[in-house]
Amino acid sequence: MGKIFVVGIGPGRLDEMTPKARAAIEEAQVVAGYNTYIRLIEKILGGKKIIGRAMMQEIERAHLAIEEAAKDQTVAVISSGDAGVYGMAGLVLELILNLPEENRPQFEIVAGVSAVNAAAAILGAPLMHDFAIISLSDLMTPWELIKKRVRSAAESDFVIALYNPKSKRRNRLEEVQKILLGLREKNTPVGIVTNATRPNQEKIISTLENFIREEINMSSLVIVGNSQTFVKAGFMITPRGYKI
Amino acid sequence: MGKIFVVGIGPGRLDEMTPKARAAIEEAQVVAGYNTYIRLIEKILGGKKIIGRAMMQEIERAHLAIEEAAKDQTVAVISSGDAGVYGMAGLVLELILNLPEENRPQFEIVAGVSAVNAAAAILGAPLMHDFAIISLSDLMTPWELIKKRVRSAAESDFVIALYNPKSKRRNRLEEVQKILLGLREKNTPVGIVTNATRPNQEKIISTLENFIREEINMSSLVIVGNSQTFVKAGFMITPRGYKI
Repeated sequence: MGKIFVVGIGPGRLDEMTPKARAAIEEAQVVAGYNTYIRLIEKILGGKKIIGRAMMQEIERAHLAIEEAAKDQTVAVISSGDAGVYGMAGLVLELILNLPEENRPQFEIVAGVSAVNAAAAILGAPLMHDFAIISLSDLMTPWELIKKRVRSAAESDFVIALYNPKSKRRNRLEEVQKILLGLREKNTPVGIVTNATRPNQEKIISTLENFIREEINMSSLVIVGNSQTFVKAGFMITPRGYKI
Repeated sequence: MGKIFVVGIGPGRLDEMTPKARAAIEEAQVVAGYNTYIRLIEKILGGKKIIGRAMMQEIERAHLAIEEAAKDQTVAVISSGDAGVYGMAGLVLELILNLPEENRPQFEIVAGVSAVNAAAAILGAPLMHDFAIISLSDLMTPWELIKKRVRSAAESDFVIALYNPKSKRRNRLEEVQKILLGLREKNTPVGIVTNATRPNQEKIISTLENFIREEINMSSLVIVGNSQTFVKAGFMITPRGYKI
């Protein structure tokens, strides 16, 4: 029986991937991941078997990875950012635990720099106080629950980070904006980072009233400030509360 | 004028620090950080000037770092985990932006593997769905606001990660537990990781009804599952929603 690493490769740049993540990938004979992520790290994949699949085939990819491990291979299943945040960790772990105990490969999750932390570092320091992470993807979560979470996070003044803010199929950012405008000032800072740390990185700092725009896509992360967040010299900052 | 890097060193192990973070520390002549974090990375600090201070002196430490930068030094201000999450990024940035523009050092934030992601990887995959990060420290946040955030996060079924769950001075975990028990099943999984990735790492998987114990301290992270979270074979998993 082989071993499966589920590896968070970080936001994209190789020097933002931990040595532990890199060692796991280097140890693996087989690497499985969404094509875009495979391309981000292809420099370190020489000679390995690649299981690349398009976005919507996570379950197939996870099954293939487990099949390889059953053939005594070491497999690295990769996710961008941290594999434990909307990544592959949960799915692979669930599938492994559904196997009879004697058929389970060894399993290890290797943490990575999460997309929200990478985006925050680019914007300044927007996450210095309590924050909520919400995916706007309604593929597996009812839209009503997503809206409820946006509303309650806004009601108790969390900084709010929105993953998967818009897809080709879905654009409900105006609904989200409307909920937030009912609970937070219209000049609340909003930071948008697209393709964080990658060559085509874009950073926008705007306001709750004006943040919706074309450039937002599935590779964007949108961070909505809390009532204390401010913008100065192009940086977005949520104060922790130090008296300075 | 010198340069300040604010660097997230990751949870503790050197191989969970990104190469970018390590390069920033290696480039610096001066390293500033809480003593515990300095000790975690002392292997790579040879020959550097160290500004180590105890927990409560963040403002003094930040000022000293800025003074060093004014003397044309490169300074790395370090935080464990990610410097942008209850770390030094916001404070240092605020102090720099309070200076006249011509006196501001160069400034860069280097993201790290956040404590919550490190703890989650040890527990399994508890953060696979929307989650809220709340610090229970009431030094700079009114306790009523903290409780309100716990309540609203529970009401809309976020996974909840509690930073700074208990200090020598403060133990209000029972109040938090009571709020949560009013809104979530008593057998909801709760994972506790103390000193994640460090030599004295401890992992506990318990339930909302029973999770409070001696071992929880300022180096612990407590993750409370949502209504879907389950425990299997010692792993804590919040399903993303795949039909498997």
